Amino acid sequence: MIIVADNLQITNQRIADALGEMDASPVREMVAGCVAAGAEAIDINPGPLVRHAEEKMAFLVETVQSATNLPLLLDTTNPVALETGLKVSRNKTIINGFSLEPARLEAILPLAKKFDTDIVGYLLYPDSRVPNDANERITIAIELFNEFQKAGVSAGRLIIDPVIAPVLWENGHRQNIETLGLLGQLPDVLGIPVRTIAGLSNLTTGRGGKEKKLRLERTYLPMLAASGLTMVLMNVFHTETVRVARACNALLSDHVFSWESDF
Amino acid sequence: MIIVADNLQITNQRIADALGEMDASPVREMVAGCVAAGAEAIDINPGPLVRHAEEKMAFLVETVQSATNLPLLLDTTNPVALETGLKVSRNKTIINGFSLEPARLEAILPLAKKFDTDIVGYLLYPDSRVPNDANERITIAIELFNEFQKAGVSAGRLIIDPVIAPVLWENGHRQNIETLGLLGQLPDVLGIPVRTIAGLSNLTTGRGGKEKKLRLERTYLPMLAASGLTMVLMNVFHTETVRVARACNALLSDHVFSWESDF
Repeated sequence: MIIVADNLQITNQRIADALGEMDASPVREMVAGCVAAGAEAIDINPGPLVRHAEEKMAFLVETVQSATNLPLLLDTTNPVALETGLKVSRNKTIINGFSLEPARLEAILPLAKKFDTDIVGYLLYPDSRVPNDANERITIAIELFNEFQKAGVSAGRLIIDPVIAPVLWENGHRQNIETLGLLGQLPDVLGIPVRTIAGLSNLTTGRGGKEKKLRLERTYLPMLAASGLTMVLMNVFHTETVRVARACNALLSDHVFSWESDF
Repeated sequence: MIIVADNLQITNQRIADALGEMDASPVREMVAGCVAAGAEAIDINPGPLVRHAEEKMAFLVETVQSATNLPLLLDTTNPVALETGLKVSRNKTIINGFSLEPARLEAILPLAKKFDTDIVGYLLYPDSRVPNDANERITIAIELFNEFQKAGVSAGRLIIDPVIAPVLWENGHRQNIETLGLLGQLPDVLGIPVRTIAGLSNLTTGRGGKEKKLRLERTYLPMLAASGLTMVLMNVFHTETVRVARACNALLSDHVFSWESDF
């Protein structure tokens, strides 16, 4: 399971300010912090970038890759910003992502073919509603894969995000139980050894005490890992959660276990 | 997942001394501590009880049930002690346990029928060797179930312990990955919704730092829970591990999630 830092996002005021002022230093500091904390890839989430989308995305990608060679996930719904990011990126780059939403199918999915990159597909309805159960998710996964193939992207490029439901939703925790089963089924359903990604903080969106939220995330993460999750998008400054992610890898990897492993 | 305290065991010097002197007070204190820490059942592990087996087991069971109404697991290879324990117990009682080892098949398994109790069956070879892979475990589970039925115990009484392997064993962690799959398969293999139990501390037997051992146990536990483990045998004084076990229940139960849940 690959640890992807979700820390570089516009909801962080320091990053929002840095992006507003095109100030590279706080961005580089954040990236260096993520790398030191154990990030193995960096998600760049600048929001929709309503103004100066191209300059800002170029600034972010250039700044991040001046600080690290780690893979980048470009996490925006703005296709113009996305294309700019893909043009200037030298690191391995993943588009994060598309869904059955028509605007994303038309403007974002083709970029995966144009730039020959991996792309994340969310299991969401065309109107961005979250599906209600595993059957709906499977149906969407198949439709998503069909659209993906129609767009001419090679099958191995798809990474599926089953979309973790907040436990506060009335059926949230039931959905998350089903998601565990779904992770194991997806390769059979799609007929390819499809990779998967999930945003861990979704689980605890909304009210709740911080310690319990973190504990719940640290508890659900090993369940996701054992179910085959390939990449986890998470706050890498949650030190104990990073250690648990690494402990998952120590328990689940093909290598002989060693206490020397860093977890 | 039911939390079973493994704390009341002869390897604890305080318990060994109390048993030697038939001193009820330290035993009652230990039990009260376990209950306060979140135990939902108490495993009584007095070792093989070479001398005064009947008196000592009776003393232990009487003392424990003077302190709690929780279910008891009687964890000894000594059939005489076991039978005494079953005779004096008023709490719900589980025999822990039998295996394909001839002495246990002959002397211990029949007690489950005689006293109409649940009984734990270990997935071990007749010579107590641990099986090497999931196929061997499935074969043993079927043999165990056959012996169990031959003994005339009703099917619902069986609880299977797949036996967690120490990660330090060369193939230990590979076995533990397979055990996760096995937990899900057992009901299909045996044709009954069989319950399962596992001793968590087995995972980290041998050398290793305490913090990393605890983290590894807290990481493997949610994997076991998501795979359907019914009961976990664990040190309930590991507070954070108990909280994780409860968080597993909050995530996996049929009830609507609530932050009010105690985890």
